[in-house]
Amino acid sequence: MKASDLKGQTIVFAASGGLDSCTITRWLTDLGVKVVCATAHLGQPDEPDMDLIRQRMLASGAVDHVLVDARNELAEAGLNVLQSQSTYEGRYWNTTGIARYVTTKAIIGEMRKRGIKVFSHGATGRGNDQVRFQLATNMLAPEFEVYAPWRDETFLANFRGRTEMIEFCEKRNVPVKATKNAPYSTDANMLGLTHEAGKLEELATPAQFITPGRGVHAKDAPERGEEVEVRFENGRPVSINGKKLNALDAILAANAVAGKHGIGIGIHLVENRFVGIKSRGVYESPGMELLGTTYAMLLQLVLDRRSRELFDALSLYVSKQIYQGFWYDTGTQMAMAGIERSSRLVTGTVRVLLQKGTISYVAATDVPHSLYREDEASMEAIGSYDHADAEGLLRIFGVSARVLSKAGHIQQ
Amino acid sequence: MKASDLKGQTIVFAASGGLDSCTITRWLTDLGVKVVCATAHLGQPDEPDMDLIRQRMLASGAVDHVLVDARNELAEAGLNVLQSQSTYEGRYWNTTGIARYVTTKAIIGEMRKRGIKVFSHGATGRGNDQVRFQLATNMLAPEFEVYAPWRDETFLANFRGRTEMIEFCEKRNVPVKATKNAPYSTDANMLGLTHEAGKLEELATPAQFITPGRGVHAKDAPERGEEVEVRFENGRPVSINGKKLNALDAILAANAVAGKHGIGIGIHLVENRFVGIKSRGVYESPGMELLGTTYAMLLQLVLDRRSRELFDALSLYVSKQIYQGFWYDTGTQMAMAGIERSSRLVTGTVRVLLQKGTISYVAATDVPHSLYREDEASMEAIGSYDHADAEGLLRIFGVSARVLSKAGHIQQ
Amino acid sequence: MKASDLKGQTIVFAASGGLDSCTITRWLTDLGVKVVCATAHLGQPDEPDMDLIRQRMLASGAVDHVLVDARNELAEAGLNVLQSQSTYEGRYWNTTGIARYVTTKAIIGEMRKRGIKVFSHGATGRGNDQVRFQLATNMLAPEFEVYAPWRDETFLANFRGRTEMIEFCEKRNVPVKATKNAPYSTDANMLGLTHEAGKLEELATPAQFITPGRGVHAKDAPERGEEVEVRFENGRPVSINGKKLNALDAILAANAVAGKHGIGIGIHLVENRFVGIKSRGVYESPGMELLGTTYAMLLQLVLDRRSRELFDALSLYVSKQIYQGFWYDTGTQMAMAGIERSSRLVTGTVRVLLQKGTISYVAATDVPHSLYREDEASMEAIGSYDHADAEGLLRIFGVSARVLSKAGHIQQ
Amino acid sequence: MKASDLKGQTIVFAASGGLDSCTITRWLTDLGVKVVCATAHLGQPDEPDMDLIRQRMLASGAVDHVLVDARNELAEAGLNVLQSQSTYEGRYWNTTGIARYVTTKAIIGEMRKRGIKVFSHGATGRGNDQVRFQLATNMLAPEFEVYAPWRDETFLANFRGRTEMIEFCEKRNVPVKATKNAPYSTDANMLGLTHEAGKLEELATPAQFITPGRGVHAKDAPERGEEVEVRFENGRPVSINGKKLNALDAILAANAVAGKHGIGIGIHLVENRFVGIKSRGVYESPGMELLGTTYAMLLQLVLDRRSRELFDALSLYVSKQIYQGFWYDTGTQMAMAGIERSSRLVTGTVRVLLQKGTISYVAATDVPHSLYREDEASMEAIGSYDHADAEGLLRIFGVSARVLSKAGHIQQ
Repeated sequence: MKASDLKGQTIVFAASGGLDSCTITRWLTDLGVKVVCATAHLGQPDEPDMDLIRQRMLASGAVDHVLVDARNELAEAGLNVLQSQSTYEGRYWNTTGIARYVTTKAIIGEMRKRGIKVFSHGATGRGNDQVRFQLATNMLAPEFEVYAPWRDETFLANFRGRTEMIEFCEKRNVPVKATKNAPYSTDANMLGLTHEAGKLEELATPAQFITPGRGVHAKDAPERGEEVEVRFENGRPVSINGKKLNALDAILAANAVAGKHGIGIGIHLVENRFVGIKSRGVYESPGMELLGTTYAMLLQLVLDRRSRELFDALSLYVSKQIYQGFWYDTGTQMAMAGIERSSRLVTGTVRVLLQKGTISYVAATDVPHSLYREDEASMEAIGSYDHADAEGLLRIFGVSARVLSKAGHIQQ
Repeated sequence: MKASDLKGQTIVFAASGGLDSCTITRWLTDLGVKVVCATAHLGQPDEPDMDLIRQRMLASGAVDHVLVDARNELAEAGLNVLQSQSTYEGRYWNTTGIARYVTTKAIIGEMRKRGIKVFSHGATGRGNDQVRFQLATNMLAPEFEVYAPWRDETFLANFRGRTEMIEFCEKRNVPVKATKNAPYSTDANMLGLTHEAGKLEELATPAQFITPGRGVHAKDAPERGEEVEVRFENGRPVSINGKKLNALDAILAANAVAGKHGIGIGIHLVENRFVGIKSRGVYESPGMELLGTTYAMLLQLVLDRRSRELFDALSLYVSKQIYQGFWYDTGTQMAMAGIERSSRLVTGTVRVLLQKGTISYVAATDVPHSLYREDEASMEAIGSYDHADAEGLLRIFGVSARVLSKAGHIQQ
Repeated sequence: MKASDLKGQTIVFAASGGLDSCTITRWLTDLGVKVVCATAHLGQPDEPDMDLIRQRMLASGAVDHVLVDARNELAEAGLNVLQSQSTYEGRYWNTTGIARYVTTKAIIGEMRKRGIKVFSHGATGRGNDQVRFQLATNMLAPEFEVYAPWRDETFLANFRGRTEMIEFCEKRNVPVKATKNAPYSTDANMLGLTHEAGKLEELATPAQFITPGRGVHAKDAPERGEEVEVRFENGRPVSINGKKLNALDAILAANAVAGKHGIGIGIHLVENRFVGIKSRGVYESPGMELLGTTYAMLLQLVLDRRSRELFDALSLYVSKQIYQGFWYDTGTQMAMAGIERSSRLVTGTVRVLLQKGTISYVAATDVPHSLYREDEASMEAIGSYDHADAEGLLRIFGVSARVLSKAGHIQQ
Repeated sequence: MKASDLKGQTIVFAASGGLDSCTITRWLTDLGVKVVCATAHLGQPDEPDMDLIRQRMLASGAVDHVLVDARNELAEAGLNVLQSQSTYEGRYWNTTGIARYVTTKAIIGEMRKRGIKVFSHGATGRGNDQVRFQLATNMLAPEFEVYAPWRDETFLANFRGRTEMIEFCEKRNVPVKATKNAPYSTDANMLGLTHEAGKLEELATPAQFITPGRGVHAKDAPERGEEVEVRFENGRPVSINGKKLNALDAILAANAVAGKHGIGIGIHLVENRFVGIKSRGVYESPGMELLGTTYAMLLQLVLDRRSRELFDALSLYVSKQIYQGFWYDTGTQMAMAGIERSSRLVTGTVRVLLQKGTISYVAATDVPHSLYREDEASMEAIGSYDHADAEGLLRIFGVSARVLSKAGHIQQ
């Protein structure tokens, strides 16, 4: 799709309020496109004043600006990720990825109200976000078109980088926020922050190069740790330190306490993007890390060996699906339906000690579906089976072990 | 198998030198069994003087004691675990599990030299170690028998717990090391320590309850961190801080520096044992944690998306196989052969900062098989493909996304 | 558990009415155990007169006999297997395995009504059925005990094989059906027949050695084939050749028509039993084969690449779970919840030709969730994307392919 | 890449000799491109006279034509597929897919000799073959360019379908083979035939619509069946009916005998293409079906439960990799290295009966690595373990089953 196809039409542009948003809005407006800017409120820590975005977008030529509050939806999406323990290729909680889906869905609702049928965004042609915006739109509203200026040759011919955009905006008195000298760029929402590009593209830049937005580096955390108690019911966090909270507030509270102690701040990852390229990110998601770790501690208690095996496979599957743009497809629905059967077993209270970037187990209590039984676990006491029973078990498993050897399967 | 079947025979008993070893050796000797005690030297940090074990076992009635140095074999097994990134149900590096295989193999070699055909061990009828000893013996030496007193009703009738063993030994002047009051028990080797039983069986006992044997708790680590540089070649650690090391020395050096900073000390895990029971362990493996984490950082650079997917599946598979007694079987060989193809790509130098229990990425250099290319990763620059190419890609993937929607697969 | 523990108690014995059932009932009765025999009606083709079983069991000393109609439950279980496409290590539809769960559940209901707490069965100590009976009972009624004479040394001391049982029954005038000369043994229910043991234990016995119980061997099928049309709605068969049917009748009708043409008759399999031993079976399940194959043809139309990948993994997982005794556990519930999301997409009519043991595709119609679009599939026509778009896609995927090569990953 | 970029250059075009080949060669030549046509000899059954292809291509303007014999390489690739049992989404043996890799590799060798750096092919922009050609070239020869006319807008502007191509060739006296009326198109090599497009795009066209090229439809096979004996050593077929054969001849011999009996002829599949679109194919690969099935019968004997689980996962993985263009990447190498550990266990002789499209097991002999032991498999005899041992085993597994129930995991 090209900009010239849109002349005279009204489109929605997903605006963050940054340099790209202003440039694209101005440029499209100049070409005769009516641009309604839409911003999803995702609890961004770095953009407290949503009204500023509105002013900036209107100043860039937008015919309207709409703010959609998607915080609860994002909190629910975050819970799904938590319940599936889906980190991508390591410890990245996919926080930017899931926000794209939530944003797209929220904006599509707004577009349907206004009768607008073209969705536009400022994601580049090398990243993952374009994939998520596109596939989410195609799945949720197949009748809509997606217009991505960064994949439009006419746009690309004008703007090869930040420098041209800044000049373009300055020339038109568009009030951009960005400066030329940001050492890296950040995407932020209440679930976490993604830092990439700029200096971070050099592998010799340490993870601690970033300035945390949701807490402090572990080294700067207080010497004295702090115990925190998280309670889950049916797979959902319901209280922190005894205080009842809904999902949204639980995530915010978890961010606050975990960020203060340097938990989940500055996670380095070199990852495989959808398009096959490797990229490097440094992540912050203290709340997800705290909630995810305490959730994992309950999972240890309730998953038997066989369900653990399936859970681990589903978890890996979901993390790929989310990352690659397939949050809404059949495969994700199937996997989530399976995971939901585990989530309903996750009830209990976990106490941990947060200190200088580490989470240390203190206690788990009130876990009705726990499979851990102190009496059975004991190596010493005689519990529900005699130790001698194991002789039978091992005689039986020994048969096939010996056959393997006799049949020449074992290397000495 | 029962003790009475062994009267007059010579057997080998895998002796750690602890209370169980002494009791079993004495008890069998009293019944007319000739017991050759064998101890594998595994770099146990808690048992520096191997000669003491020998004295104790001979004093318990053993007809002989043999010390088998298995440190290099254990280091190699540790490398295999590292290369497969196989932690069991979380962050347990299977350090006790793999030592059982190494011990069994080493002792079987000794038995063949001496013409002994019965292998005996002191693992209990509830644990995993009995499974590993048994299956390893059955696979490596199917003609051998395994005798496990803790599954023998005649032995169990006499010894229901530590109290009876201590009394038995005291009455016979067997010089046991154990006291009645140890709050938990520990299995240790150069790869790591496993703490379990006793007070640790209560879920209200914090992970920091244990007294570390390979370093300090994170809270007790020095305020000031330390940078460490680890170099791998073809999947093997070859130097630390520029000093060339073989595998064994690399693990020892990694233990020292990581243990000092509280890395991998006090890892809490509730896990599914082979027999289906949940048990709780607290683990220490600072060296494996340091080497494993730096190894993972190189894997991030060399595994593409598809090989990553397979690697993750193989890693999960191997961790189950090792834990459950199947180190030597066909499935493990198949998985390891696959993993070996990834290991040979892991060459490079990784610098990390160790501080108060955390490992923070500093830099990765000299990674010849790295798929990360700064020029490609950049969101901004025009690299080997035009951003506009992504339009084609997404138009194509968009087709199936829309069909999903039109065919009623998507839930709004 | 031993027979002597049961003296004076009332137990339920799951009786098939065969030699084992009569022997065990008589033997237990002689020891003073009150045996209530229970038989599940599973649509066994080889045992049309259920009243005969009742007479035989009462003549064997049973204090009562109860017939539980489990045909609908078995049909539903068969549908679950169909929907998960779960064949074990090849094309065995697990028909005996799932019947054990259905039988156990049906009998437990009966036991609860009568206040009986010991469940007994005649499965041997080498097979899989003992595992299914045991684990199903332990999961559904953990307060119940399971007594298995074939694992009881006192019983085994008396009966080492069929010969002793026949002699025992003859001496006590128990009217047994079995003769000494059956060349193999068969377990049968409406879903299929399992033939094993006897001559079939020799690998040189061809699959066609068995005498089919649900149709004919392919070679004996009529020369002239027959077209059959099966319709599914939401994953359930609802009609065959236009005739509306419930699940039970659909399976029976499928058996009739497929069996007549030699479909799914005489399937040879050497499989891994739960206990680690290999065993050899020859199977018949014409109806499952016909329904399963037509179901698969619809799955081809509705599963996209990513959901297919997950489906295949879940299918393998479920087949292991069912075979090994874990039908009721958390893992199976998780997998089935995932599969259910695919089942609801399976609506459509499939026409196939059955002939001499083969199923050949004729047509698929009325498939609302089909992702197949003739216009898109065409290699030639210009559909919803330009062929030239593929240039962009391949330029992008080509980047990472080339990087793999440049980084030394490719072997020439 | 566009045709105009190639003016004056020498390129290689992978020519099958069909309508596309002639049209493209002529069209490029007219534009001033020097086209060397290369044809891989793949044992195509439908093109016995390779010299005809040469004449046709030279008549189309090619500056040269080279015939590369790739039959042995294709046979080896076929063996790899056999050993991994990798059928795509059902029973398609990927026969066209693997031929693309073999062809690409063979032609690249030829290009290097001649100093040519542009590889061109006639695969369309909707299919999978373009992906395989592209990624194989990019991986094997990253310095080469790929030019695909069907993705070039200048070519597409001239040729929208077969009609224009036929007219173009007729006008220039290019001697094309194709007629306008072929009801579907076929790709063929010694491993199998792929029929698609045309009438086959309608789902109401039965599988038997195709005219077999490698045998007969099952219905037309002789009434009387035929026994065949296949011997494998270390995973390779070494003789059929006692006659020693190399891999190539084994495949040809298997094709002949299996094709005669209608084995693997007319396999219907609706499959997910790389680009996300569903397509429909009807396949023939009698030899692969016969060799694959007999191979599977040996795998049943040599794979234990755990290696079977891994094998099944690797098999699914490889089938996706091959189909989607990734035969040469790290993931495939890893999976193949794992599978190779199973292949080396596959030695033995399998006798089967082929009749009217079905393969029925007759006997398996001389299988040194077989895990099947008649004495162990017997339900009745007392083998290497007492039946009573199973009581211990089940008491132990029963503990966790009961805990699941008590902890509320089981649904009644």
